[in-house]
Amino acid sequence: MPATIGFIGLGIMGAPMAQRLISAGYDVVVYNRTASRAEPLVAAGARAAAQPLEVAQQADLVLSIVTDSPDAEAVLLAEGGAVHGARKGALFVDMSTIAPQAARDIGTRLGQRGVRFVDAPVTGGDVGAKNGTLSILVGGAPEDLDRARPVLGHLGARITHCGPIGAGQTLKACNQILCALNMVGLTEAMALARAGGIDPALLPEALAAGAGGSWALEKLGPRIVAEDDAPGFMIDLIQKDLRIVQAMAEAAGLPLAGTAVAQSYFADNQAHGEGQRGTQGMFRALARRA
Amino acid sequence: MPATIGFIGLGIMGAPMAQRLISAGYDVVVYNRTASRAEPLVAAGARAAAQPLEVAQQADLVLSIVTDSPDAEAVLLAEGGAVHGARKGALFVDMSTIAPQAARDIGTRLGQRGVRFVDAPVTGGDVGAKNGTLSILVGGAPEDLDRARPVLGHLGARITHCGPIGAGQTLKACNQILCALNMVGLTEAMALARAGGIDPALLPEALAAGAGGSWALEKLGPRIVAEDDAPGFMIDLIQKDLRIVQAMAEAAGLPLAGTAVAQSYFADNQAHGEGQRGTQGMFRALARRA
Repeated sequence: MPATIGFIGLGIMGAPMAQRLISAGYDVVVYNRTASRAEPLVAAGARAAAQPLEVAQQADLVLSIVTDSPDAEAVLLAEGGAVHGARKGALFVDMSTIAPQAARDIGTRLGQRGVRFVDAPVTGGDVGAKNGTLSILVGGAPEDLDRARPVLGHLGARITHCGPIGAGQTLKACNQILCALNMVGLTEAMALARAGGIDPALLPEALAAGAGGSWALEKLGPRIVAEDDAPGFMIDLIQKDLRIVQAMAEAAGLPLAGTAVAQSYFADNQAHGEGQRGTQGMFRALARRA
Repeated sequence: MPATIGFIGLGIMGAPMAQRLISAGYDVVVYNRTASRAEPLVAAGARAAAQPLEVAQQADLVLSIVTDSPDAEAVLLAEGGAVHGARKGALFVDMSTIAPQAARDIGTRLGQRGVRFVDAPVTGGDVGAKNGTLSILVGGAPEDLDRARPVLGHLGARITHCGPIGAGQTLKACNQILCALNMVGLTEAMALARAGGIDPALLPEALAAGAGGSWALEKLGPRIVAEDDAPGFMIDLIQKDLRIVQAMAEAAGLPLAGTAVAQSYFADNQAHGEGQRGTQGMFRALARRA
């Protein structure tokens, strides 16, 4: 009989991740707030639960990936939440991107009920989720990570232990700063190229291998040239992550002026109804002014 | 008898570039404002000229690489400048990083004297200059680039024709935006990592291969972790380049708020006597506040 894994949150990331675990032969019990999203997974062999609590009753290992800190608290701790069905010694692995402090608070409250917890946010997007090539950034006790590792190995190509609970979220916040600022550079450079009358396709072609190079330039530069801002990673979601970043920075007395510029450009996108576009859509905040 | 090449400007970039041409077997006539910098090249087989004018008298192809727009105008156009010794049909290749408009003005004034001109700024730093692996960004007539190409091939691994005169400088300006903003991201992410209590070495180790990845993160991230800000590319020089960027942006009506943040951080470095440090020294503008 295969091991049973609980999986909470079947969005653009969670659905393909749960599918990978089903395909790997695990018995997977799934929950999603919008129940219809569970149907394709049930068709693939999963069992659906009506509440997070019911997921936890059936599994020693429960993974979750939802949108924001309040969502994670809701599915894990609120009425009907997973903690209320947790088996003795269960391990919860939250793969959402939330505030490090929220992760620490969840860890404390779960610990009071005898539930082990690690935070394990991911990078690599929906493509990484489908292909099992995510990078997984883990905060928590090393022995808890070791316990989750065989399952996480089906989801990610790289698993990094970052420190105690919350440390995975801290590194994820750093990653979102890098993504946001690399996009600011790309947006301003592309706008200057157009204003200066050169072919913006020269940027990814001639500059990607040099000191100005980045994943953003190489992968998203050609999409900006084509004015293709299909997501990818959505502006509304990176804005949520950058709010987490600024809350951390505020608490630490760190003025992150560059991150604030990225937020301004993305806010311009949102003000123009472009929040559901990919982050490369930032180019629209400048490109037309030239 | 080998072809003779003129070479003006023997700084951190020009000296190793001229050396490569000597090593390739060319007869090289050199000029530098501070004459002593020509001595090692003369010892290697170059001939020294007392003025740019004398360089141009002896060569059909004259390369120059100096610091800023006024320096390029001085060595090419002022009294004693190369134009006053130019052979009929000579080709001047200016590899300095200057304003696109300055390059266009130089091209116009040289053209009035029957001298062909291309702008050909480079990326790749002193290491690229030594190893002949520069990326050369060329603006000018395709036939002029073709004429220079055999010689440029000893200096660069990649030669990109960007458009008419000035277009090389425009793409170089775009590159400097990318370098500056990737460094802003790295600086803010590193500062948040330290403030959040995680090992900043995790950033290059765990994030360089992902969507937050950049040349800056991979190559300069470990140096920031080690607090090593030896240049590399100097803060004073990228500030000069970013002033060119902002002058272009101002003329085009483009507000480059992210570039302005990079300038602020680098100005903080300069205010603290760190202008001769490498650009990765930007980390000092934030790292200690946490």
